[in-house]
Amino acid sequence: MNSHLKTLRVGMLGCGVVGSEVARLLIDSPEDFAARSGAKLELAAVAVRDISIKRPGIDPSILTTDAASIINDPKIDIIIEVMGGIEPARSLILQAFKNKKSVVTANKALLAKHGAELYETAAANGEDIYYEAAVAGAIPIIRPLRSSLVGDHIEKIMGIVNGTTNYILTKMDETGAAFGDALKEAQDLGFAEADPSADVDGFDAAAKAAILAGLAFHTRVTDADVSREGITEITATDVAVAKSLGLVIKLLAIAELTPDDAISVRVHPTLLPRNHPLASVREAFNAVFVEAEAAGSLMFYGRGAGGAPTASAILGDVVAVARHVLSGGVGPSESIYADRDIAPVGAIETRYLIRLDVEDRPGVLAAVAQTFAKNNLSIQTVRQTGSGNGAELIAMTHKAKDSELSATVKALAELDIVKDVASVIRVEGFEQ
Amino acid sequence: MNSHLKTLRVGMLGCGVVGSEVARLLIDSPEDFAARSGAKLELAAVAVRDISIKRPGIDPSILTTDAASIINDPKIDIIIEVMGGIEPARSLILQAFKNKKSVVTANKALLAKHGAELYETAAANGEDIYYEAAVAGAIPIIRPLRSSLVGDHIEKIMGIVNGTTNYILTKMDETGAAFGDALKEAQDLGFAEADPSADVDGFDAAAKAAILAGLAFHTRVTDADVSREGITEITATDVAVAKSLGLVIKLLAIAELTPDDAISVRVHPTLLPRNHPLASVREAFNAVFVEAEAAGSLMFYGRGAGGAPTASAILGDVVAVARHVLSGGVGPSESIYADRDIAPVGAIETRYLIRLDVEDRPGVLAAVAQTFAKNNLSIQTVRQTGSGNGAELIAMTHKAKDSELSATVKALAELDIVKDVASVIRVEGFEQ
Repeated sequence: MNSHLKTLRVGMLGCGVVGSEVARLLIDSPEDFAARSGAKLELAAVAVRDISIKRPGIDPSILTTDAASIINDPKIDIIIEVMGGIEPARSLILQAFKNKKSVVTANKALLAKHGAELYETAAANGEDIYYEAAVAGAIPIIRPLRSSLVGDHIEKIMGIVNGTTNYILTKMDETGAAFGDALKEAQDLGFAEADPSADVDGFDAAAKAAILAGLAFHTRVTDADVSREGITEITATDVAVAKSLGLVIKLLAIAELTPDDAISVRVHPTLLPRNHPLASVREAFNAVFVEAEAAGSLMFYGRGAGGAPTASAILGDVVAVARHVLSGGVGPSESIYADRDIAPVGAIETRYLIRLDVEDRPGVLAAVAQTFAKNNLSIQTVRQTGSGNGAELIAMTHKAKDSELSATVKALAELDIVKDVASVIRVEGFEQ
Repeated sequence: MNSHLKTLRVGMLGCGVVGSEVARLLIDSPEDFAARSGAKLELAAVAVRDISIKRPGIDPSILTTDAASIINDPKIDIIIEVMGGIEPARSLILQAFKNKKSVVTANKALLAKHGAELYETAAANGEDIYYEAAVAGAIPIIRPLRSSLVGDHIEKIMGIVNGTTNYILTKMDETGAAFGDALKEAQDLGFAEADPSADVDGFDAAAKAAILAGLAFHTRVTDADVSREGITEITATDVAVAKSLGLVIKLLAIAELTPDDAISVRVHPTLLPRNHPLASVREAFNAVFVEAEAAGSLMFYGRGAGGAPTASAILGDVVAVARHVLSGGVGPSESIYADRDIAPVGAIETRYLIRLDVEDRPGVLAAVAQTFAKNNLSIQTVRQTGSGNGAELIAMTHKAKDSELSATVKALAELDIVKDVASVIRVEGFEQ
């Protein structure tokens, strides 16, 4: 290694699955990091909860339980935050900027909630905040949005950004399993937490949706702006019906511009045609599909979580930040000039697939069709199946607003011949 | 628009399909470019061959046939090169750097041949050279390799980087058309040139393979280092046999590290299993599949050519360069520290699918199998089809070196019972 290179000292907050991979890669390939960043990158301090745990490859003398001591150490140049959670991560990162240290973080929840404060404090102190790992793990999506597509106009983003729910939905699709069984399998395999709410209720995807929407549309978007619906209500029947129609159910994070140039940002189970590029993204993989005016359709695919993939994204950012520390520059700052409105839930038009349990007698289809017509909701296709107790009516609508849909569903539920509105799921990915 | 912003003047060399889209986007969205780059970007001069052609939206007074006058104009800050070809593009770009202008180019042939000279001259003058549009059009792949994955170790890249050949192979696969008919259709639709050699003989893909290999493996790689085979020999029978085996033929640009840490870089028709992410990339779309140590498998998918998609990539680069002009910095420079060897053709081990026209008599399989064994080429599966004049033997080998393959093919061709070695095609995308 070139011995006259400057040394940059890296302090890391947290050393779990991701942190230990970051440490391993930094310690294993010093020559590569030196050649690529222009500086020797030394992992100089790591804040952990329990200092007594053995961490192979990491010199125990650099471990501390006092995270603030790293932030306040003037010899530390760059902070990697992989502790997660809102506090103390937020306060530590803000103090790092004030202490003139750039920060690389994977903390999507924090960015989605307190991004404005973080970006502003970073900019005010002339420091970088990089967060490629916060959305879709190893997949480069932040940098393409911040830089590669910055000369284009993004129209819509649809992402499979939560590996746990994609794993569960893949199993339901491939084996016919019920949600509960697929969740249990995911938990047994370590793909889902014991408390799965952050994943299955869509909170994790919503945080990522907010980050993607903000970048794509040059506007501040927080997790509170995201309309959110999880996958816990999806049944084996929903999945089977989707399959019979050549569709697949995915939990998508969607951000798009409305005709009024406002931002619709939402997370919900979505029916996609099986030939859509996102439909073939299986198991815990992630993918982000982007539609831009000039570029057309793009897709970014890869591993969305896990120690090594997330560490890859973090270390790409660390090299970028190190180059800036050496050259005195900073990367692109927060771009919020467009300052678009957030569209109210229901402002965006989508198609819907509506499944009704109905009486098996003549006139059912006519009554249902009339109810749709009364509410100005146009049906594209309708299918009747089963008989007797199992009679079912499945309708695919043309594009409609959420408000039109709600009125129709309410009216359908009030019909005598409708025993139950079994499910209503949004449809994306068709040409119109 | 913010009236006290600095104005940066852009000069463009060439104004064909791509250039006119670049001009349109620059002229149509001045506020967006100003907000995103921090400067007013003014298209101040455009070099064209014929000044009399009407170019809607472009002020005729900025057109000139004298490209050098743009390069030598001290009021021009940034050069966009979309004229293509080696000269005069090379000399003009070199002079631009010497005149302290950064350059954005889409010229893959030039980069693959004279990259070293361009990067060195840019660096010596403290200027940027950006070229996202040179590989895979609108798909952000250069920036992810240069920046996002710079903290990881890339092991292999496989790309569908030529839309013309992918269109032809898609048609052959979907309709059973012969190569010549599919080529003619592509020409009629404007997907292929009247002289299709740059595409169908793999020259275009080879230039892109060289650029990708150099970035991924931190080494200088030129088009002369790329082993190249086009798709002109692929027959309808090859495609049909592939289909019957659950495979698809794609023209891939492949760059990978050999076990000796040398670089194998090549372009050739390749059989892929149909469930491989690259297999579903249809028509003129491009995709680049990357395997990295920590990140795992990634894929980048989108439009690889065309005016608007290419313009999107160019303008992302223009914004990045404009930010650097304002802040005084430059982007990542050429990274060639690893200085790896280029592996000789045949150093890499791949599987092969070998198709033989054979006599229809007992003992054929035994004789063929013996020939494989004698040459230490291990067969994974073998299939005999047809009878009489149409008897055919199809063998899929285990991984073997090119040299072992050549010896075997030579020996097979010398067998009395082998009427013809109908085709030998490499196979990728299986686990081992």
